[in-house]
Amino acid sequence: MPLETPAMENLNTLTGKYGDEGDQLLFKILNNGDFLKDIDLQNISSKALVPQIADRGLRYDLTVPLARFVVMNRNDIAFPFKRYQMQPVWRADRPQKGRYREFWQCDADVLGTDSLLCEADFIRIYKDVFEKLQLNDYELRINHRRLLEAICIKAQASEHFKTITIIIDKADKIGMDGVAKELAGIGLSDNSIATLSGLLKKYELSTQTLDNLQSALQGIPEADKALADLRQVIQLSGDAIDKVYLDVSLARGLDYYTGCIFEAVPLSVKMGSISGGGRYDDLTGVFGMKDISGIGISFGIDRIYDVMDELKLFPPSGMLFTDLLFCPMDESAIGFCMPIATTLRQAGFKVEIYPNASKLKKQLDYANNKGIAWVAIVGENEMNSGQIALKNMGSGEQIATDATGIQGILSHSN
Amino acid sequence: MPLETPAMENLNTLTGKYGDEGDQLLFKILNNGDFLKDIDLQNISSKALVPQIADRGLRYDLTVPLARFVVMNRNDIAFPFKRYQMQPVWRADRPQKGRYREFWQCDADVLGTDSLLCEADFIRIYKDVFEKLQLNDYELRINHRRLLEAICIKAQASEHFKTITIIIDKADKIGMDGVAKELAGIGLSDNSIATLSGLLKKYELSTQTLDNLQSALQGIPEADKALADLRQVIQLSGDAIDKVYLDVSLARGLDYYTGCIFEAVPLSVKMGSISGGGRYDDLTGVFGMKDISGIGISFGIDRIYDVMDELKLFPPSGMLFTDLLFCPMDESAIGFCMPIATTLRQAGFKVEIYPNASKLKKQLDYANNKGIAWVAIVGENEMNSGQIALKNMGSGEQIATDATGIQGILSHSN
Repeated sequence: MPLETPAMENLNTLTGKYGDEGDQLLFKILNNGDFLKDIDLQNISSKALVPQIADRGLRYDLTVPLARFVVMNRNDIAFPFKRYQMQPVWRADRPQKGRYREFWQCDADVLGTDSLLCEADFIRIYKDVFEKLQLNDYELRINHRRLLEAICIKAQASEHFKTITIIIDKADKIGMDGVAKELAGIGLSDNSIATLSGLLKKYELSTQTLDNLQSALQGIPEADKALADLRQVIQLSGDAIDKVYLDVSLARGLDYYTGCIFEAVPLSVKMGSISGGGRYDDLTGVFGMKDISGIGISFGIDRIYDVMDELKLFPPSGMLFTDLLFCPMDESAIGFCMPIATTLRQAGFKVEIYPNASKLKKQLDYANNKGIAWVAIVGENEMNSGQIALKNMGSGEQIATDATGIQGILSHSN
Repeated sequence: MPLETPAMENLNTLTGKYGDEGDQLLFKILNNGDFLKDIDLQNISSKALVPQIADRGLRYDLTVPLARFVVMNRNDIAFPFKRYQMQPVWRADRPQKGRYREFWQCDADVLGTDSLLCEADFIRIYKDVFEKLQLNDYELRINHRRLLEAICIKAQASEHFKTITIIIDKADKIGMDGVAKELAGIGLSDNSIATLSGLLKKYELSTQTLDNLQSALQGIPEADKALADLRQVIQLSGDAIDKVYLDVSLARGLDYYTGCIFEAVPLSVKMGSISGGGRYDDLTGVFGMKDISGIGISFGIDRIYDVMDELKLFPPSGMLFTDLLFCPMDESAIGFCMPIATTLRQAGFKVEIYPNASKLKKQLDYANNKGIAWVAIVGENEMNSGQIALKNMGSGEQIATDATGIQGILSHSN
């Protein structure tokens, strides 16, 4: 089902959900009216003043609004609850390529089931979506939180689990050498680092890979659970896993993921991830509704647009909004063209009448500027004879026809 | 062409454009970081502090962002410039029926021409839009700013023009008696009030009406201009004016309208206007681009939704999102259903698999809650025989078929 939520959430719904950095990137809405009333401004800091003068903020993602919505409507919702949501979100980031202050997310989530069917459904969705966009230049990386834990246990570094996930999350930027350096920096032994570096790799997603990891991680229950999950995901996904890799180094910072983790990245365009997601066991707990397992993914629509633009995947005719421009040579020609234009519009064609009997050159310049393919020049002769000269702006080809003939010509040229 | 603008505009783009009341209803975005730095908080008022701590605000309508956009991109735009825009806007109003803090507008404007062809085009758009929505329960009111001026001149009250427009704008709420009382309150003579009351009425939009007004307002140039405009609009509009009335009392507060004014109101639902608009001669002047005549209309999408909802114009099947639910009787049935579901989905059907082998009653409750028409119960027998029992949740009808047969049954029942 589709869902849309308001742009504004109560500020306390948003704060504390995205880490300290996220809190700083929230856009807050100044209260209206006399918002300073009863506020003691003596020695107050900006940070302390915010919650006193701003009750609301702009949504930062679509996940927290979903959790808030589900908890508020828990009695009216049939679980498992599936929804998709496409809306802009706002972050007070420094704008740069692939990072905008306003950008669109497209999320899909299932709440209220721990079935691995959902993981398989999302893998299928990835395949279908990118196929429909003809965006083949990507790979889908998958990992399992428990597998990452098992590897840390194997490396005798499980007390550093959280820090390790943050460090390996940077592998794309600083490389595995940089990761090793930082791991040494937090006090890991050479042995531990060697174990981590040996295992934290990208593998084909296959039962063979899972068998190998099973041997390497024998006796660690976290590994058993993760590998059993992944085995079932492979089985349920069928032929949808052709572009899926098991990237054991994938962590995706957000520490609410508890099972499978997803990330889609373009291959030939430098752009970070274009989608991410995963399974969470307690998304709604912070709003008072415990033990609702769920899973969701989020497409970054603007980044996908940027990637498709760079790969020239948009059709060149994307900006062609007008099929035909009538060029009236005198004011009475406007009235003559009007019913013909109405008929063509009702037939589905995009038709304009130049609104004044300006000089023909000006009217043709307008057609050229807008990339309009056909013009119909209408003056006294045309009105008397009923024969209209259609001109193709690209080829220069000219065809004389009557009002009904225009429709046929436009149909053929589309 | 479609246009979308950012949710945030610079606050100084927005302030002063909607009157004092509008300024108070703007949502302002608190600056990020240490926004109090270098600000003297001694005895400062809320109003004086706002521009120091809020550089941005949320858009209040789609017209000011359009004007800002056109001025910023004047060198890249082919005039006349036509765009439509559908986006939410925000106003810090007291929420009530038909009045929301976040609501959607759908605007269409043409900038850079004073041709009355545009007025006729918009009248046609009104007809087409409401016909497509099957919303016949409305009327379109049209007026001309100059006609209103001419009537004030005729009533020897032209120095009160602005106040008079504000008062008659309230006619819907306070009635013509209330209007007369308020007009007396500003010092108009009984004669003036009688003239105004005699003319400020709703008429059929016809050449006959225009002839009558021409006689009544003879010798007033404002009337000549307005009536000539309206005559041409009637001529260019053809059969699109069947629901259009000339409502000479229509003012629509906004004082930037300079020519034709539009307002669409539902007839049997109490809801104020569901669309308004008009011609303005200087929308972009405030941003430094003078003498660009334009015209635009705005549909209030939420109000139209509310009216359609009240008139029960939405199809009852609007909430039916799932065609078929597979009910697995054991875990292995999930894997069995998966490829069948994929095939059905690729054929365009909305198909779910219940994600666990829960008790059948629970699964059927889920189907009932979501209004799912068909369920397919799949257990060991079904997997062995390949024959699946499709059950219609409404009629109770049951059909045994194989995987390929399901598609045929769903096709027929849609």
